Amino acid sequence: MLNFEFINPTRILFGEGQVERVGEQTARWGKKVLLVTGGKSVRTSGLYDQVLDQLRGAGLTVFELSGIEPNPRVTSVRRGVEICKSEQIDIILAVGGGSVIDAAKAMAAGAKYDGDVWDFYGKQVAVTDALPLGTILTLAATGTESNGNTVVTNWETHEKIGMGSPHLFPKFSILDPTLTFTVPRNQTAYGAIDAMAHVFEQYFHHTPSTPIQDRFSEGILRTIVENAPVALQNPEDYDARANLMWSATMALNMLIGQGVDEDWACHGIEHELSGFYDIPHGAGLAVVFPHWMRHVLPEGPTRFAQYAVRVWDEPDDGRSAQELALAGIRKTEEFFLSLGVPIKLDKWDIGEENLEEMALRAVRRGPLGSFKKLSSQDVLAILKDSLK
Amino acid sequence: MLNFEFINPTRILFGEGQVERVGEQTARWGKKVLLVTGGKSVRTSGLYDQVLDQLRGAGLTVFELSGIEPNPRVTSVRRGVEICKSEQIDIILAVGGGSVIDAAKAMAAGAKYDGDVWDFYGKQVAVTDALPLGTILTLAATGTESNGNTVVTNWETHEKIGMGSPHLFPKFSILDPTLTFTVPRNQTAYGAIDAMAHVFEQYFHHTPSTPIQDRFSEGILRTIVENAPVALQNPEDYDARANLMWSATMALNMLIGQGVDEDWACHGIEHELSGFYDIPHGAGLAVVFPHWMRHVLPEGPTRFAQYAVRVWDEPDDGRSAQELALAGIRKTEEFFLSLGVPIKLDKWDIGEENLEEMALRAVRRGPLGSFKKLSSQDVLAILKDSLK
Repeated sequence: MLNFEFINPTRILFGEGQVERVGEQTARWGKKVLLVTGGKSVRTSGLYDQVLDQLRGAGLTVFELSGIEPNPRVTSVRRGVEICKSEQIDIILAVGGGSVIDAAKAMAAGAKYDGDVWDFYGKQVAVTDALPLGTILTLAATGTESNGNTVVTNWETHEKIGMGSPHLFPKFSILDPTLTFTVPRNQTAYGAIDAMAHVFEQYFHHTPSTPIQDRFSEGILRTIVENAPVALQNPEDYDARANLMWSATMALNMLIGQGVDEDWACHGIEHELSGFYDIPHGAGLAVVFPHWMRHVLPEGPTRFAQYAVRVWDEPDDGRSAQELALAGIRKTEEFFLSLGVPIKLDKWDIGEENLEEMALRAVRRGPLGSFKKLSSQDVLAILKDSLK
Repeated sequence: MLNFEFINPTRILFGEGQVERVGEQTARWGKKVLLVTGGKSVRTSGLYDQVLDQLRGAGLTVFELSGIEPNPRVTSVRRGVEICKSEQIDIILAVGGGSVIDAAKAMAAGAKYDGDVWDFYGKQVAVTDALPLGTILTLAATGTESNGNTVVTNWETHEKIGMGSPHLFPKFSILDPTLTFTVPRNQTAYGAIDAMAHVFEQYFHHTPSTPIQDRFSEGILRTIVENAPVALQNPEDYDARANLMWSATMALNMLIGQGVDEDWACHGIEHELSGFYDIPHGAGLAVVFPHWMRHVLPEGPTRFAQYAVRVWDEPDDGRSAQELALAGIRKTEEFFLSLGVPIKLDKWDIGEENLEEMALRAVRRGPLGSFKKLSSQDVLAILKDSLK
């Protein structure tokens, strides 16, 4: 195990009915709240009105910014920063999925910064202060509800960039599984795959002797594999939705990555994909990961064999690590397909046109990942393998 | 899964060499520090001098209280509270195992309270404020380094009582596995069993659909089962010590108990045992748990069967849940014995004399536990079964 420093100060309020506590939780941090939301679903579901009632009932003055898009745009973030500054907002409340929360984190940082908020992403300027942030999560996927990370897209430069800061952990996050009952089939699947991908990034490493991290990671993966099909079959199955929600949080609340050499190459590649084509993040990861797995397999077949045995119950029957590993990768692909999610780019009408540019851009800050350090040639090979 | 609220704000600094950061971490919280320690081992190991150097190097004024005993006594806590009040201490730094840290937590609460510190335990008065606390852990066992719990013994009344408060989470905890290289064989074993017992208390429940909690719990148990014998064989095996240390923290940092109906009956029984006889906590748990398992087995054999299969690799070969469960309990007993720890009271020279009184006292606030609600008759039966 490697040395590490770990802290996660986010308060989690989990379960049906916890939205009733949003007024009390928000009011701890001030009087003026900026309520940030995405599309119409929070309004049609009645959640929006419920939250407004709660906030006003707690004596808060509410400012609003709606319409945050998937793959949230820096232009939207800038609007939020302006409101925070002009109205002297005390706390931001994000109600939505990962995109809404990530955008709200950017606003929280931007509100305490004199320059342009894109500096945190494009120039990797460090965040030194931020407004407090609370969240109500409506999609089990990114884990942003319990970490300090945010990803924002700049369409002027075709850049989708992530950054993180200890200042950006939400002060509280409300996780009510019933809020995900109405998540569409494809979004449910992308969310499950996104959470699995977060585990993969922290699980495929060469660090010796990390049994707690391994078992936790495998437990999250198994839970998603067991519960995602149930949620697709019956979108209002509370236990399935709850287990997916808690899995997605645990997948990226920084716990399972402690003491290991994390990878994150596939996220780098996927950010190029969805930065170019605006496909859903989980969908991009479903394409990239299986091909990455095959590409890097020679670097550590025993790790992939362990994955096959412990996550997919492949019998450890004397086959070579290589054979077991390939069986586990096939199971991964079959699982993604069973959720109705393609594992090839052509299903998204993406061809060869931009692969070389994406490969070059993916490594513009240096080789990607750690399990195998990927050059632009590696990235290009992975992208070409994933074409069709 | 049940609803829950979870927050754990303790900063963990994990790994060899992290003691070098104690000055910087402590100085964040003030100028005057009370350094609380136990027996002589921290002095003979050189740790004590290293910590003093670090604290003084960071410009702190250091007050000292040493000699905190195993099963820490309220009389020692009162001495600490006096120092905190008379010297206007800003932060307490506990260097030691669970007893030292638990005593320091009590001091932190007592320093901000006008009454007698035992009120928090005997009268269960709620803690409303506390001094900040940092810890340097020297024994992998109780998890107190990352939770708000504390157990203190009052020898005047033969009471060993626990309490918890969100105010008592350490601000930071330094976990350097090399500090446990010199932990004696029996203490290493007791610590491993203590951590396993914490998992048991949160794992044996009737709450449906808790796969994340289950898999994490099973992962911690497997890690302890695999690493404790290695640490006994080679006390300076870094990975084994590191895995035990991280296991013990994860076993009781409040994570795996979220959303489940926890038990804690065995801790209630064990507190009577070590409140009467001053035997090590882990040793008492090694006696109580197997007999509790057999006693409550009829309430839920499938839960114990899952334990046998997933933790002990009992083949799920068509045997009944009852048979699998009993095989898992036998493996548990054999494991404790393999660590050199008895599972019968007669090995501790404890006879029948006080069993009835202990059984009555154990349930003085009502039935114990949840998997089966134990009456004094149940407790007596468990204690009698464990006699020899």
